[in-house]
Amino acid sequence: MKAHNRSSQTIRDYDNKYYMHPWEGMDSFGQADRTISASAEGIYVYDEHGNRLIDGPGGMWCTQIGYGRRDMADAIADQVMRLSYHSPWNTASEPPAVLAKKLADLAPGGLNNVFFTTGGSTAVDTAIRYMHFYNNRLGRPNKKTVISRDKAYHGSTFLSASVTGRDRGKNFLDVDRERVHLLPDVNPLIRPEGMSLDDWCAAKVKDLEDAIVALGPDSVGAFIAEPILASGGVIIPPNGYHKGCMEVCRKYDVLYISDEVVTGFGRLGHWFASKDVFDIEPDMITCAKGLTSGYLPLGACLINDRIVDPISGPDQEGVMFNNGYTYSGHPVACAAALKNIEIMETEKILEHVREISPYFLERLHSLRDEPMVGDTRGIGLVGCVQGKVTGDGDSYALDQQFGAKVDEKCEEMGLIVRPMANMCVFSPPLIITKTQIDDMFDILREAIRQVAREFPQAA
Amino acid sequence: MKAHNRSSQTIRDYDNKYYMHPWEGMDSFGQADRTISASAEGIYVYDEHGNRLIDGPGGMWCTQIGYGRRDMADAIADQVMRLSYHSPWNTASEPPAVLAKKLADLAPGGLNNVFFTTGGSTAVDTAIRYMHFYNNRLGRPNKKTVISRDKAYHGSTFLSASVTGRDRGKNFLDVDRERVHLLPDVNPLIRPEGMSLDDWCAAKVKDLEDAIVALGPDSVGAFIAEPILASGGVIIPPNGYHKGCMEVCRKYDVLYISDEVVTGFGRLGHWFASKDVFDIEPDMITCAKGLTSGYLPLGACLINDRIVDPISGPDQEGVMFNNGYTYSGHPVACAAALKNIEIMETEKILEHVREISPYFLERLHSLRDEPMVGDTRGIGLVGCVQGKVTGDGDSYALDQQFGAKVDEKCEEMGLIVRPMANMCVFSPPLIITKTQIDDMFDILREAIRQVAREFPQAA
Repeated sequence: MKAHNRSSQTIRDYDNKYYMHPWEGMDSFGQADRTISASAEGIYVYDEHGNRLIDGPGGMWCTQIGYGRRDMADAIADQVMRLSYHSPWNTASEPPAVLAKKLADLAPGGLNNVFFTTGGSTAVDTAIRYMHFYNNRLGRPNKKTVISRDKAYHGSTFLSASVTGRDRGKNFLDVDRERVHLLPDVNPLIRPEGMSLDDWCAAKVKDLEDAIVALGPDSVGAFIAEPILASGGVIIPPNGYHKGCMEVCRKYDVLYISDEVVTGFGRLGHWFASKDVFDIEPDMITCAKGLTSGYLPLGACLINDRIVDPISGPDQEGVMFNNGYTYSGHPVACAAALKNIEIMETEKILEHVREISPYFLERLHSLRDEPMVGDTRGIGLVGCVQGKVTGDGDSYALDQQFGAKVDEKCEEMGLIVRPMANMCVFSPPLIITKTQIDDMFDILREAIRQVAREFPQAA
Repeated sequence: MKAHNRSSQTIRDYDNKYYMHPWEGMDSFGQADRTISASAEGIYVYDEHGNRLIDGPGGMWCTQIGYGRRDMADAIADQVMRLSYHSPWNTASEPPAVLAKKLADLAPGGLNNVFFTTGGSTAVDTAIRYMHFYNNRLGRPNKKTVISRDKAYHGSTFLSASVTGRDRGKNFLDVDRERVHLLPDVNPLIRPEGMSLDDWCAAKVKDLEDAIVALGPDSVGAFIAEPILASGGVIIPPNGYHKGCMEVCRKYDVLYISDEVVTGFGRLGHWFASKDVFDIEPDMITCAKGLTSGYLPLGACLINDRIVDPISGPDQEGVMFNNGYTYSGHPVACAAALKNIEIMETEKILEHVREISPYFLERLHSLRDEPMVGDTRGIGLVGCVQGKVTGDGDSYALDQQFGAKVDEKCEEMGLIVRPMANMCVFSPPLIITKTQIDDMFDILREAIRQVAREFPQAA
């Protein structure tokens, strides 16, 4: 397939001058000179020069079934021709109705009420607004504080950014911290020397309970948590953590919002990780990304019967949940999600993830024998390699560039990783094969070695 | 084309049970029994029984080029096959770069910096967050209050809902009113008897200036306004209003956000109404809907060089605008927008709107001779018919149902209108012909007459 219609120079010129990207650096705006993604197929992205790269980050944690599926293009085009849009305020149509039923079937227990959004941020915004609505309807207007966590990422609307714990210090945007409380990092790596994982788990669950008690249970509306803290650096909480937090939430009548934007749709080998991996049935689950494998924008907030039933029914005359979007339940996006789920079922992609991930994790953890590597973490098909801080001064500064330097070497050899300070994180398309996993980690190891050779003082 | 794969009963059952729609009524949740939109072509939507209906509201003010375009389906499918996704954080691609350049070309003056979002709500959320960022960077952390207006609609994220003026009284959701101030209704219809439109305009502009002075110019960050208040009831401000407000904003260094989610992309016969209809060059323009004719979810916030240049450049080391979405600049959605704009250019749709809208408005205003009609308002291809309150008690109650009753009659005769209390508003696909406009208003007039016959006391 022809890469693109215009020259790379023209695309880059337009991109630099007119497109303000997410997290745009204001110092380089106008001269960002980003790499151009020209085309993609399977697990591979092709850049403007025709170089083939393994898509380590899976787009942005989202390209589960891989790129360039003809059956997906056909399903999308068919729906465009059939019914490209209808107002979700006034009418129903087949794709969102069938998708809502399907999601209710795939989600645990009572999570049967599907509110469609345009992505993860609006799914989280909706979840928190539903908590406001719920407590207002129950006559508890002060029960609104959201407890979140350090290093959590929940989105970029004002409200979803307000419950995000990442990058607080270096941010010039406003957030609402009055009704948000952040718990400290749950990363087992930072536990005091000699502390067992069980004790760490108990301490982290206690952080939640202590906060609820300190804030006052009457003022705490929800706890929001990613099953694993994804863009915060693939932080996997200790065993039993979520279950413990769920018990605390029940004890104080605090809603549990499980943000499965990253973990949903197979990333950990299951449709949703909340129940199947962490054994909890949350009050709300937010999802997006893998829901369509990134083919089209779509998000959803799944709401448990448990918190719908008490505030719905004939006695609620004139009460509306005044929330929603022009593109809620967009029929084309929903048709893409249905095809995506069908492909995952037909091709047994969840089974594949469960089968292949032990090998993926084995290759990941084998990188610990590289002197520059400080930690490796992973679960399902998510992994993180963290550099090792060996001192301060120059060595610390280099460590902070570990991600960028490794990423640069990887790209030269045909692998995209996602650099984040002293980490590289990756979440490849779920269809990745054993051979492709070998390719990926062979390149990664070689890149780490090259960086080590260039900066021997760091290792 | 086959309407759908499952029976209407199954679709309705799934829709009722599992899909919580926008503005869901909690009293009827589970039994909403919505009409099913099965397919659509041109300006027509077909329901589950094969009935053909003129799409009066244009989906949700968005289906500019009409439904079922094969060239659009092909453009979308081609981009799906070429590159269905890439992370906008790290890489560039052709569709968003070219679309950003195109939007900068179409938008007035210095509105050259395009931030892509997933729809109108996230475009408004982004605009307000950019104002926060801008004033924080300029060392004015207290200059954050947003002035909006009664009956304004700006979206449904927490932040965009906070600057919305509609439905405040009957809403059970939380909003932030601490940093929001709402000005009273600008509808010329409600001006004191005998007051000229010029005096009304001056009074409404003075409302803005008075509010800024009362709140303190150092605390007011932005004024946000739709060129016409669309879902608030097609309220068209008096001539000179926006220009007057812009002068006030400049005087007090308050940013002007023009919310063109409805008016953009031809609704008033121009790409953007701010400059071409109302002669202002705002600091930010938000758009969505017509940008893709609703074919795929996409929004954008266009930011003026005037407020980018002072806070960008090499001296801004390490400063990022920490805002954005996984689906910002989605390549498939951007490809749809490019095809949409190409179709509008090739088929001279803006010219068509400017040519046909006088006839549309003539037919609209001719409805004033119906005794039940209290007011008609319109501009471009947007119109509103408002019932006439003739008294109180039963007659008032009936008037509040005017929209629903007229809508019901219209649907029986093949026209969807959008009922809102005592109003019907419509914004048909921009490709509507003179004959189709005749069909539309013939049905509407007949419906109004039927309602009048059933409820003679109301007229």
